[in-house]
Amino acid sequence: MRSVNPDSPPGPAGPLTPRPDVLVIGGGVIGLVTAWRAAQRGLRTEVVDPAPGGGAAQVAAGMLAPVTELHYGEEALLALNLASARRYPGFVRELEEAAGLETGYRACGTLAVALDADDREHLRELHAFQQRCGLESQWLNGRECRRLEPMLAPSVRGGLRVDGDHQVDPRRLAAALLAACERAGVAFRRASAARLSVSGDRATGVVLADGTELSADRTVLAAGPDSGRLDGIPAELLPPVRPVKGQVLRLRVPGAYAPFLSRTVRAVVRGGHLYLVPRTNGELVVGATSEELGWDSTVTAGGVYELLRDAHELIPGITELPLTETGAGLRPASPDNAPLLGPTELAGLIAATGHHRNGVLLAPVTGDLLGELLATGDLPEQARPFTPRRFGAAASEEHLR
Amino acid sequence: MRSVNPDSPPGPAGPLTPRPDVLVIGGGVIGLVTAWRAAQRGLRTEVVDPAPGGGAAQVAAGMLAPVTELHYGEEALLALNLASARRYPGFVRELEEAAGLETGYRACGTLAVALDADDREHLRELHAFQQRCGLESQWLNGRECRRLEPMLAPSVRGGLRVDGDHQVDPRRLAAALLAACERAGVAFRRASAARLSVSGDRATGVVLADGTELSADRTVLAAGPDSGRLDGIPAELLPPVRPVKGQVLRLRVPGAYAPFLSRTVRAVVRGGHLYLVPRTNGELVVGATSEELGWDSTVTAGGVYELLRDAHELIPGITELPLTETGAGLRPASPDNAPLLGPTELAGLIAATGHHRNGVLLAPVTGDLLGELLATGDLPEQARPFTPRRFGAAASEEHLR
Repeated sequence: MRSVNPDSPPGPAGPLTPRPDVLVIGGGVIGLVTAWRAAQRGLRTEVVDPAPGGGAAQVAAGMLAPVTELHYGEEALLALNLASARRYPGFVRELEEAAGLETGYRACGTLAVALDADDREHLRELHAFQQRCGLESQWLNGRECRRLEPMLAPSVRGGLRVDGDHQVDPRRLAAALLAACERAGVAFRRASAARLSVSGDRATGVVLADGTELSADRTVLAAGPDSGRLDGIPAELLPPVRPVKGQVLRLRVPGAYAPFLSRTVRAVVRGGHLYLVPRTNGELVVGATSEELGWDSTVTAGGVYELLRDAHELIPGITELPLTETGAGLRPASPDNAPLLGPTELAGLIAATGHHRNGVLLAPVTGDLLGELLATGDLPEQARPFTPRRFGAAASEEHLR
Repeated sequence: MRSVNPDSPPGPAGPLTPRPDVLVIGGGVIGLVTAWRAAQRGLRTEVVDPAPGGGAAQVAAGMLAPVTELHYGEEALLALNLASARRYPGFVRELEEAAGLETGYRACGTLAVALDADDREHLRELHAFQQRCGLESQWLNGRECRRLEPMLAPSVRGGLRVDGDHQVDPRRLAAALLAACERAGVAFRRASAARLSVSGDRATGVVLADGTELSADRTVLAAGPDSGRLDGIPAELLPPVRPVKGQVLRLRVPGAYAPFLSRTVRAVVRGGHLYLVPRTNGELVVGATSEELGWDSTVTAGGVYELLRDAHELIPGITELPLTETGAGLRPASPDNAPLLGPTELAGLIAATGHHRNGVLLAPVTGDLLGELLATGDLPEQARPFTPRRFGAAASEEHLR
C-alpha cells in the first residue's frame, strides 16, 4: 500500500498522482528518458519542470558522434558513448512507436575535415587513436573530401570519413519523449523545483517555487546545469556541474541548393569545434561556441560572428542561405566531461546529469541504466565509472592518498 | 456634396467612409505622413494597407543624415534632404503632440570615420565637397575620434564630425504616425491593393485583393517598392521603382556598457555603407547591406556575417553585446536615387515613392509637399525636381534630343 503525501492537500496545489515512487527534477531529454523508462518498469513517476521538453534540446545540434568526438584520456566515456550510439536505431524505433512521433534520426555519417597543415596533423593523430581504439574511420585527401561534399572550401586539406557517426533532431526527440512519457502515465508538474527536501540524512522530495511540497521514495536530479545549484542539497554533496554556454545558428537550405551537404561536416577552426548538421527537412544547424560565462545564455554579436566566420571559411556557399534562427543554451559540464549517473552520497537522491556535450547521444543508455537502477535498486556495471561519488569528499581523500 | 461610392454596397466589404477624397495606397511612413497631412487639411482620407505602420520602417535604422549621406551629382536631393532635416524638430514636436506618443528623435550627431588611407582620402574629399555645399562638418584625426567615441578601433585613421546629422526610431515614428492619422480621422482599410482602377485616362481608385472596389478623386501611390509593379497602371507609366534589399541587426547595450556609443558612427567598409545607431533605450542598430536581388527579403548568413565582420572591425567591443534581432527590408529605389513626388502622367494618380535610403528623413517634407498638393492642387516649387514625369516617355525623348 502506498501513502498519499500528507503535506499537500488534494486540489490545484496538491499532488497530481498518489505519492510517486520517483520524482524527476528536470524535463529535458535526460529527465524525460529516465521518467519514460521508469514508468515502463511500472514505477509511479512524476516530472517537475516548468516547461518539459525544453532546455538544451531546443538548441543542440543532435550529433551522435562518439568517433569524431573522441578525446585522449576519455576512454571510459568513449565506451559509454559507443554503447549509446549502438542503441540508437532500436531506441528510436521503440520511441517513435511509443510516441507516435518521428525523431529525425538520420544515419548520414560525418566528415571531419582539416583546413590547414596543423589541423591535418591533428586529424591524423585522431585517426591513429581511433584505430588503436578499434573505431572505423577512413582518411581522405582534400580532393576526396570535396568529391563527397562539393560545397567544401578549396582549402580543405584532408579529412576523416566516419560513416558510423549520425544525427537526430533534438527538438523532435524531446517532443517524442514527452509524448511517450504521457502515454506511459508519467505525471507532469509544470513548476520549478525550488529546493530538495532532506529529512535526516535522506532526500525525500522537492519543494516547488510556490511552496508546494512533493515527496517520493527516490528523487532523480536531472536538472542539467541547475543540478549544481539546487537549494537543499548539502553543499559538500552538490554535484560539480557547471554551465558551459553554446551558441548555435539555424540556416535553411532552399530547394534549389539541396542537398547542399549530405552528411555532418565538422572541423576545428581557430581552436573551436565547428559543425554543420544537415537535416532532411532542409534545416542546417551550425554550432557551437563553448563559453565559460556562468549563467549568461544570451546570443551575442561575437558568438554569431565567430560561427558565421568559421562556417564561411569551411563552406563558403553558406552566405547564400537564409539565417532563420540564433540560439544559446547551457551544457551541464562536469570536471571530467563525463556524466554523473546513479546514487549520490545522499540516500534517496540519484543523479542523471553532467552530460555536457553528449546529452542527446547518451539518452538511450542513460534511460536504460537509470530505469534498471530505479526498478531493481542495482546500478548496472556499465555505469560504475560514472558514479557521482567519484567527485565526493571521500573520493578526493582517496585521490590524495 | 459628396457621392458615396456606388460600386460597393455598405457592409463588411463596403466603404469605411463616404467616398474619400484621397486614397493612399501603402501605410508605410510615407503613406502615413501623406494621409495625416491630407486629413489635417480637411480631406477625407483612407489608407489601404494590410498592416499599416509596417514596411521598411520596421527595419530601417532611422538616420537623419543629409550631410554624411551627401553624394556627388545629387545636389537637388541634398537640398530636399536638408529641408526635411531642418523640419524634423518641429515635425516631431507636432507629431508627438498629435499622437500622444514619442518618436525616439535624438539630436546626437554623427561621426563618419575612415579605417585606412583610402577611406581617409575619400572622407577628405567628402569634407571638401561638404564645405563647397556650405555644410558644417569638422575634420578629426584618429585620436580625436577615439576621444569622442572610445569604443572605436585603434585602426581608425580620422573622421568627420557632423553635429547636425541626427536620428529617429522608425518603429516609434510609424506608430506615432498611425496614431496621429487615427486621431485626425484617417480611415484604414486593412487589405492589399490588387490593382489600380483606371477609367478612360484617369485613375479612379483601387481594387482590393478580395475584389472590393474603392474609388476616390485622387489616389496616392505610396507603396514603396510595390509602387513599381501595381497592376492596372499602364506599363509605360509605371514608376521606375525597384526593391533594394537591406539587412539590419539590432544589438542591446547592457547597462554595464552604457553608453557604448554616444552618437551614430558610420564608415565605408569594403565598399559597403556601415553604420551603428545608438538609441537612448539601449538598442544599437547595425546596418545595412545593399543588395539588388529583386523581391527576396530573407535574412541570410552572408548578410549577417558581413555586418558583424565590418562592425567588429570598426567597433571591436560589439562582440560582447547581445544580438537581439536580425531583419531585412526592401528600399524603393529610383534611377537617380531621388523620390518621385507629385502628379503622374495619369490623371488622378499622385506618386509619393522612390525614397530609397531617405524615406524616414524625407517624411516631414514629403508630408508637407503632398498635403499642399492634395489640398490646393498646386505642387510647391520645391518638389518640381522630383516630378515622376522626369522618367516618362516624353522626358526620355527630351533627354535624347
